[in-house]
Amino acid sequence: MRNWNVYLSGEIHTAWREQIEAGVRAADLPVAFSAPVTHHEASDDCGVSILGAEPDKFWHDKKGAKVNAIRTRTLIGDADIVVVRFGEKYRQWNAAFDAGYASALGKALIVMHGPDHQHALKEVDAAALAVVETPDQIVKILDYVINGKLAGYTG
Amino acid sequence: MRNWNVYLSGEIHTAWREQIEAGVRAADLPVAFSAPVTHHEASDDCGVSILGAEPDKFWHDKKGAKVNAIRTRTLIGDADIVVVRFGEKYRQWNAAFDAGYASALGKALIVMHGPDHQHALKEVDAAALAVVETPDQIVKILDYVINGKLAGYTG
Amino acid sequence: MRNWNVYLSGEIHTAWREQIEAGVRAADLPVAFSAPVTHHEASDDCGVSILGAEPDKFWHDKKGAKVNAIRTRTLIGDADIVVVRFGEKYRQWNAAFDAGYASALGKALIVMHGPDHQHALKEVDAAALAVVETPDQIVKILDYVINGKLAGYTG
Amino acid sequence: MRNWNVYLSGEIHTAWREQIEAGVRAADLPVAFSAPVTHHEASDDCGVSILGAEPDKFWHDKKGAKVNAIRTRTLIGDADIVVVRFGEKYRQWNAAFDAGYASALGKALIVMHGPDHQHALKEVDAAALAVVETPDQIVKILDYVINGKLAGYTG
Amino acid sequence: MRNWNVYLSGEIHTAWREQIEAGVRAADLPVAFSAPVTHHEASDDCGVSILGAEPDKFWHDKKGAKVNAIRTRTLIGDADIVVVRFGEKYRQWNAAFDAGYASALGKALIVMHGPDHQHALKEVDAAALAVVETPDQIVKILDYVINGKLAGYTG
Amino acid sequence: MRNWNVYLSGEIHTAWREQIEAGVRAADLPVAFSAPVTHHEASDDCGVSILGAEPDKFWHDKKGAKVNAIRTRTLIGDADIVVVRFGEKYRQWNAAFDAGYASALGKALIVMHGPDHQHALKEVDAAALAVVETPDQIVKILDYVINGKLAGYTG
Amino acid sequence: MRNWNVYLSGEIHTAWREQIEAGVRAADLPVAFSAPVTHHEASDDCGVSILGAEPDKFWHDKKGAKVNAIRTRTLIGDADIVVVRFGEKYRQWNAAFDAGYASALGKALIVMHGPDHQHALKEVDAAALAVVETPDQIVKILDYVINGKLAGYTG
Amino acid sequence: MRNWNVYLSGEIHTAWREQIEAGVRAADLPVAFSAPVTHHEASDDCGVSILGAEPDKFWHDKKGAKVNAIRTRTLIGDADIVVVRFGEKYRQWNAAFDAGYASALGKALIVMHGPDHQHALKEVDAAALAVVETPDQIVKILDYVINGKLAGYTG
Repeated sequence: MRNWNVYLSGEIHTAWREQIEAGVRAADLPVAFSAPVTHHEASDDCGVSILGAEPDKFWHDKKGAKVNAIRTRTLIGDADIVVVRFGEKYRQWNAAFDAGYASALGKALIVMHGPDHQHALKEVDAAALAVVETPDQIVKILDYVINGKLAGYTG
Repeated sequence: MRNWNVYLSGEIHTAWREQIEAGVRAADLPVAFSAPVTHHEASDDCGVSILGAEPDKFWHDKKGAKVNAIRTRTLIGDADIVVVRFGEKYRQWNAAFDAGYASALGKALIVMHGPDHQHALKEVDAAALAVVETPDQIVKILDYVINGKLAGYTG
Repeated sequence: MRNWNVYLSGEIHTAWREQIEAGVRAADLPVAFSAPVTHHEASDDCGVSILGAEPDKFWHDKKGAKVNAIRTRTLIGDADIVVVRFGEKYRQWNAAFDAGYASALGKALIVMHGPDHQHALKEVDAAALAVVETPDQIVKILDYVINGKLAGYTG
Repeated sequence: MRNWNVYLSGEIHTAWREQIEAGVRAADLPVAFSAPVTHHEASDDCGVSILGAEPDKFWHDKKGAKVNAIRTRTLIGDADIVVVRFGEKYRQWNAAFDAGYASALGKALIVMHGPDHQHALKEVDAAALAVVETPDQIVKILDYVINGKLAGYTG
Repeated sequence: MRNWNVYLSGEIHTAWREQIEAGVRAADLPVAFSAPVTHHEASDDCGVSILGAEPDKFWHDKKGAKVNAIRTRTLIGDADIVVVRFGEKYRQWNAAFDAGYASALGKALIVMHGPDHQHALKEVDAAALAVVETPDQIVKILDYVINGKLAGYTG
Repeated sequence: MRNWNVYLSGEIHTAWREQIEAGVRAADLPVAFSAPVTHHEASDDCGVSILGAEPDKFWHDKKGAKVNAIRTRTLIGDADIVVVRFGEKYRQWNAAFDAGYASALGKALIVMHGPDHQHALKEVDAAALAVVETPDQIVKILDYVINGKLAGYTG
Repeated sequence: MRNWNVYLSGEIHTAWREQIEAGVRAADLPVAFSAPVTHHEASDDCGVSILGAEPDKFWHDKKGAKVNAIRTRTLIGDADIVVVRFGEKYRQWNAAFDAGYASALGKALIVMHGPDHQHALKEVDAAALAVVETPDQIVKILDYVINGKLAGYTG
Repeated sequence: MRNWNVYLSGEIHTAWREQIEAGVRAADLPVAFSAPVTHHEASDDCGVSILGAEPDKFWHDKKGAKVNAIRTRTLIGDADIVVVRFGEKYRQWNAAFDAGYASALGKALIVMHGPDHQHALKEVDAAALAVVETPDQIVKILDYVINGKLAGYTG
């Protein structure tokens, strides 16, 4: 049976990835998840830690962002589905960047966010094949998309 | 031995997919089939069922069609061969849409329909590498294309 | 100023193309329109007329559809925007095929049809950036998209 | 002489586009600028204004974002250079989305923002070929890139 | 009005190119023709003549074929339509090579040859949108494809 | 260890494919071979045998060539290396077509033919990364390319 | 008549570009040349001059190389033919980088260098359609490729 | 777990490849390495050894470079990450060529070289996602990129 690659982009401060993964495990779906490195400090400092310190924060950040891009671009390139989650706080421009990047590659895009962000995310949502609010909805979409299972319909 | 991915698009009211699959199993061909969700009501309602109800039928349908597209575009993108079946009834514009979509991606397209639709389907047929009427012909094509077996010729 | 290429696919029995063209001329928009050959008999017979008669209608149609494809695939490939119109009558599978073809090429797709076809066209509509009912709406979209003009907003 | 297409994405509340255009005119550079519709209300309402009102704000926004996408995706697709400006206020997720979209298409990306946003935009900046703070820097880049002119070096 | 690029590949010993060009001029069609260098000796010797003599015929030929490829690949890449003519004599493998090359690029392919070659060219013909015998048929196809003109139908 | 896909196109009357396969087996190389159907009559008649007889040889051949294309285009699309063999007899235009097709897809092309055809095949050879005369040379290339083994050099 | 875009990459210390341009002007060929900025100091310092000084030479160079890439990648992307010249001195890794970049894009590559560099440049030469030593040879290739003119053959 | 393909291009006189491979084995990372043939004489002579001797060194080298390209282009095409190492000696234009080639294909590029080459490699470095000096840094990048492990951060 075909394996589905699902990339989970965006917010890193709540356990939404774990919730999706638990739901998918429970449903026994053939999904391989990938994601950016979600350890905040490691993600910020990976560049200087490996490649050498920078006195200027701009280059400190540039080095880190480039090293992270080795991972993220490769995994987004592999993905069948890219889920982008926008949380309540922070600018999260990298999440929106990933959504645009995935969209231009023709990936199936699913956006997850609360109702407060609806207007601000309208261009991102318009590029998506589904807009959801909860991890449980992602699991249900995967169960339907992969297995054709839909509660109340297919037994 | 190479596995062949065959996507079976179109008509969902007769057992043509099962007939092809049975024939392929009997011939022991290395084929992995995929298809849209063929449960009509689930396919119609998957969007609102998972993402929330819509009072307006247009958005009800839009949500469902987008969720189904997560599945169908991914699987068509994976396919080596796309078979599109047009039945006797209904508009079946999604079948013709899939044929155009697959054709632009350079997929090997096989169209299956009865003689009544020949003129109306001429542009679709012209994009195909084979036009057939029965599931058995699909099985024979797969047996020939994959194994080089042709009844009366190769033993 | 940039010129926009707009391909007008689909129904050939009403004057919707002329209405759009007249509206665009009145608004003085930099648009170059293209379309399939809309002379029904010529379109049906172009293959046999140029390449030689066929006793079998299947090959008669195939020859014609292939010659027409020289035109249509080239012009859709050139288009920035592909408009597909579904009329009240006939199967119009070539229109849906064009929509799928344009969609896979990443063209901006606009679908035009009456409310009766809403459910049957839901997959096609879901691939579109706009769904309209009248030629006048197409003209307004072009005026907005090209010039940023929107009645009641921009003077 | 070659014409350069430059798309100006992002913040719409200050006159940065006009400043770049004035500078480019003064330098007599062969540049054709393009941009999203920058009339805020027209951009928000274009969908419902042309395609019909929606009681639900989500679909109101979706319709508008899709119509705007006809313009923005076409023009970004045409661009040699995509400039994305992040202002002081608002979420500006559409700007970051455009940056990701342009990046995946291989466009030359220039990002413009103040020093406050440096850390939050590190992934976007890392995808850029230049990060600037002022319109004047954009003009200087264009003068150098197109003409090879650099103040203090080339006379 | 759109200009059509038509590449004329293949046989160089008869005046078929001139006949097509004369017909297109008479019909006043917006077509720009291109072709390989048809001066046989120049085509054979261009490599050694410009780049230096080779004692070994294999490298003599290689140098020439590579220099010719600068022209032919560029012009085939530009073409909307690639016409490949097979004459009565010689192996003409470069013509078949061009047909395969153009086909993989998705060009509209027209093949011209006499009835004697029908069986030997079946794979090439199967990749074509039209198979013709005479230059006059090419002109008629262009007139139909570009202008929608078909003798006996459109006045 | 990586598996290499090698497509063997062209001449079907001598045992060159078997010789290459035997050599590769002896060298224990991780190669998966593919090829067109090499049963001449089956290849000629597969279309009419499965899809129905045709009184006109042109359509008989067209049907067969299209069915064969389902196999050949898929397998060439999969290949890392495409070997095209030209024999002593016949036109072999399909071989040259395959070479052009593979070349436009960027496949590594190896051409095999005797010295008599050197001049006639110069354009095909010029697109190749190696030109050989014997199956043994193909085996040696594969052993070198995959394992870095070269007789007299690497032990 | 078609215009040819020719990008002249590599060595910036001799007048080879001017010699090619003069020859092309004399032959009245429809060629538009492009090139990197050849003012050495401007090219080195463009980044810091426009975007701000850097104490670390690594970032000084990075900023400049990125700004130059806006120009070079765009112009190479536009080119039909990329000429790469290797001079007698310096590492010239950017020239070899451009050759690899152009090759992967499928550009027609011409390499120019003296006989001393033959062995060291063998991989670069192997990707080229012509290897020359003098600007005059480039002019002759262009005259042949564009006009079919070859001294001693075509009058 | 996903396997990562890493291609190791460039310098062949020190044991940097073995050091990276040892480090990756120690960290038990799912990486498949590939590389050009690093046996210098075999790499130089593979063409003439298999395809026949050449009296002219230019063709001797051309044959070898083409045979090597069968391997290198295929493996670079497969790679997720391309590492290019520049050593202290030699021109190493093939390394820079590979970097340009990989960059145009959108591969994640890592460049390894000593500080002496910093200025000469600025264009190559500017195309990279990381610039390192030692094999150990490559191993650390792979451990971070694949597993999210960063010494001092993730335990």
